[in-house]
Amino acid sequence: MDFKSLIQKKRDGFALTKEEIEFFAFSAANETVPDYQLSAMLMAIFFNSLNEEETLWLTDAMARSGDMADLSGIDGIKGDKHSTGGVGDKTTLIVAPVVASCGVRMAKMSGRGLGHTGGTVDKLESIPNFRTSLATEEFADIVNKCGLCVAGQSGRLCPADKKLYGLRDVTATVDNMPLIASSIMSKKLAGGADCIVLDVKCGSGAFMKDEESAAKLAEKMVEIGRGAGRKIAALITDMDRPLGKNIGNSLEVIEAVETLKGNGPEDLTEISVLLSAKLLELAGKGTFEECKALAKSKIDDGSALRKLAEMVKLQGGDENYILNTEFFPRARCSRKVIAPETGYISSMNTEGVGSVCVSLGAGRQKKEDSVDASAGIIIEKKTGDYVEKGETLATLFCSDEALFGAAEKQYLGALNFSQSEPERIPLLLRIVE
Amino acid sequence: MDFKSLIQKKRDGFALTKEEIEFFAFSAANETVPDYQLSAMLMAIFFNSLNEEETLWLTDAMARSGDMADLSGIDGIKGDKHSTGGVGDKTTLIVAPVVASCGVRMAKMSGRGLGHTGGTVDKLESIPNFRTSLATEEFADIVNKCGLCVAGQSGRLCPADKKLYGLRDVTATVDNMPLIASSIMSKKLAGGADCIVLDVKCGSGAFMKDEESAAKLAEKMVEIGRGAGRKIAALITDMDRPLGKNIGNSLEVIEAVETLKGNGPEDLTEISVLLSAKLLELAGKGTFEECKALAKSKIDDGSALRKLAEMVKLQGGDENYILNTEFFPRARCSRKVIAPETGYISSMNTEGVGSVCVSLGAGRQKKEDSVDASAGIIIEKKTGDYVEKGETLATLFCSDEALFGAAEKQYLGALNFSQSEPERIPLLLRIVE
Repeated sequence: MDFKSLIQKKRDGFALTKEEIEFFAFSAANETVPDYQLSAMLMAIFFNSLNEEETLWLTDAMARSGDMADLSGIDGIKGDKHSTGGVGDKTTLIVAPVVASCGVRMAKMSGRGLGHTGGTVDKLESIPNFRTSLATEEFADIVNKCGLCVAGQSGRLCPADKKLYGLRDVTATVDNMPLIASSIMSKKLAGGADCIVLDVKCGSGAFMKDEESAAKLAEKMVEIGRGAGRKIAALITDMDRPLGKNIGNSLEVIEAVETLKGNGPEDLTEISVLLSAKLLELAGKGTFEECKALAKSKIDDGSALRKLAEMVKLQGGDENYILNTEFFPRARCSRKVIAPETGYISSMNTEGVGSVCVSLGAGRQKKEDSVDASAGIIIEKKTGDYVEKGETLATLFCSDEALFGAAEKQYLGALNFSQSEPERIPLLLRIVE
Repeated sequence: MDFKSLIQKKRDGFALTKEEIEFFAFSAANETVPDYQLSAMLMAIFFNSLNEEETLWLTDAMARSGDMADLSGIDGIKGDKHSTGGVGDKTTLIVAPVVASCGVRMAKMSGRGLGHTGGTVDKLESIPNFRTSLATEEFADIVNKCGLCVAGQSGRLCPADKKLYGLRDVTATVDNMPLIASSIMSKKLAGGADCIVLDVKCGSGAFMKDEESAAKLAEKMVEIGRGAGRKIAALITDMDRPLGKNIGNSLEVIEAVETLKGNGPEDLTEISVLLSAKLLELAGKGTFEECKALAKSKIDDGSALRKLAEMVKLQGGDENYILNTEFFPRARCSRKVIAPETGYISSMNTEGVGSVCVSLGAGRQKKEDSVDASAGIIIEKKTGDYVEKGETLATLFCSDEALFGAAEKQYLGALNFSQSEPERIPLLLRIVE
């Protein structure tokens, strides 16, 4: 197949065939077509887009371009939960054990954090000896034993997506709905779950800045998932503020544990229950309302927390960290951020808050960076809260006092104050299914 | 400057600034921006195009991206003539000496042939010892002495264009009028002439297949030339048939000499006089009609032929080849192509005829190929001619009998016959100035 003629075909507004789309994806994965041709194709797609069929073919081909998760050794219905990336988003640590407690298998491959959003694998690795690099058999074995396992993405997962995403990032071809949707969904399809719930974030800290574009992306992803024979739904949730109060690796595990004990912050508890309930509904455990009650009961009776502790133990970690979070070492240094004025917090730049965490050592600027497990932020006041001048807005944690100066300024720069109470935006904006 | 943001700007339909266009061109020339970003930019330009200013800036920057011809040592008005590439087009060999005989300096840099069209340098090199690789001083010296010189393109001529054209060729981004026009014109601007006449070919053997697109390209190039302070005009001429009767290197020199002697074929003579006259008019030698008469007089009195012989001698070649073309060695083998039926030749696929020449060894398929100076075709019957079955349509020449079989078939395949006389298309379709 002559790739130049495929570029020309897309350039001229024609739809590509299944074979042509597969040739594109596999050539990207195997690097058998030069980058300058791939990027010309991506720009042609930016302008003429991909139709529903092309998008599904591309997603499927990218999923098959590398290693597919082998879940054949796992019994029962397999669920997966994906978030488009949130600041302070530790819902996987809550949803996975809740759902697993209800009998749905959570065999989850998860990535590391990059930029202003954290990764579940990094968070779990703040527990000593916790292993995320698992062979297929051990992975299946753990899921069969306790109903859930969170492993790091291993092997050659979706190399076509990896190649194309890398090129899109440097050629201004990221902002195309079918390309964004197929990139995310290729990894979900390769993950092998039967039921998938998506948390599509929207707002200042999210890739999608407004509800309409978040809904479009959600619809596109649901369309792909359904086209590939999966049960799938998406929740569109607000990200104009961080989720919960804690940001940072061990700090987020601690907050997830608190939530599983029933003592979590309201927003985090609400969204975790909603995501769990939707996934349980997809897995045939009842109506959405019934599943909400079911999910709550697994928090109330402590079975979800015990499930998480069991998983941690099976993955080599010390379960006592889950049963008593006082075991987590505290950061060497801490610094309170004080309110410079009296008034309401009218808005927070969530991405900015995430970046403070990176500055404190809790996140990565580049892939190669290591993370400081105990660094992060505990937020005391969030959007809508009234604060008096001199009150504590947040506490910053890290291993080096010298980092606080800039981080404190950066944190204050991410907040806006007003004299009138701002409108409360609901957390769940829409369900797409 | 961040190149990704420039791609995004063009992608979103904004015009680039002069500095941004220059950054694009110089980064291409110096290969300081990766190919995949250049090709994404080219595809964005394909969709959102370049406005008049951007096109002029790009052309100018590409012209300045490498070595500019130094014509400072040459006295008087400098003229240049450019053809967009024709099969059997040997007009430079006629126009240059005619115009030089009228006192306009023709300091011409010319390329080698590639694909189905030949290059002037290849043609002249069929004269023994003719040198086309000249130092700046010698080049100027020859022009000052006899009024004309044809040298090969040397040094780093428009490296930005070379880079971008190479990428466009493999990323389906050739077909964009501002990019085509700026590519051609950057080399003309770098060539340094004051007055430029363009021969924009249109038809089956040309890059522009219809008159409208040829006119658009001509207008764009004239606009660029004028914007860069040059006197410029374009003739749009028909290329639905080869020009003259001879195709091939020494065969074309022989036909050019015959034309300078007043014995050339009508079409070749006509177009050579028209191009010469337009260039002379631009150089201030009178009205178009006066200049046509002036050009013809230089053929009639033999001064143009003597001018060509003088140039050949100054460039190290044997002038006797010009004064008596019997000196050119004939090809070792020849084969007549016989009319398979009686009727009119209703059309010729000019590109196909050019390809026969390449098959015979007269042209290049790849840049590295060498050419056979005496190979080629003498056409006896052209579009509009009536032929009896068994008459000679053309004679093929080459150095290897084995090539004839395929070439003969290919030649016949390029001809169409009909029983009614086809409409005659005029050679000059339009003048753009």
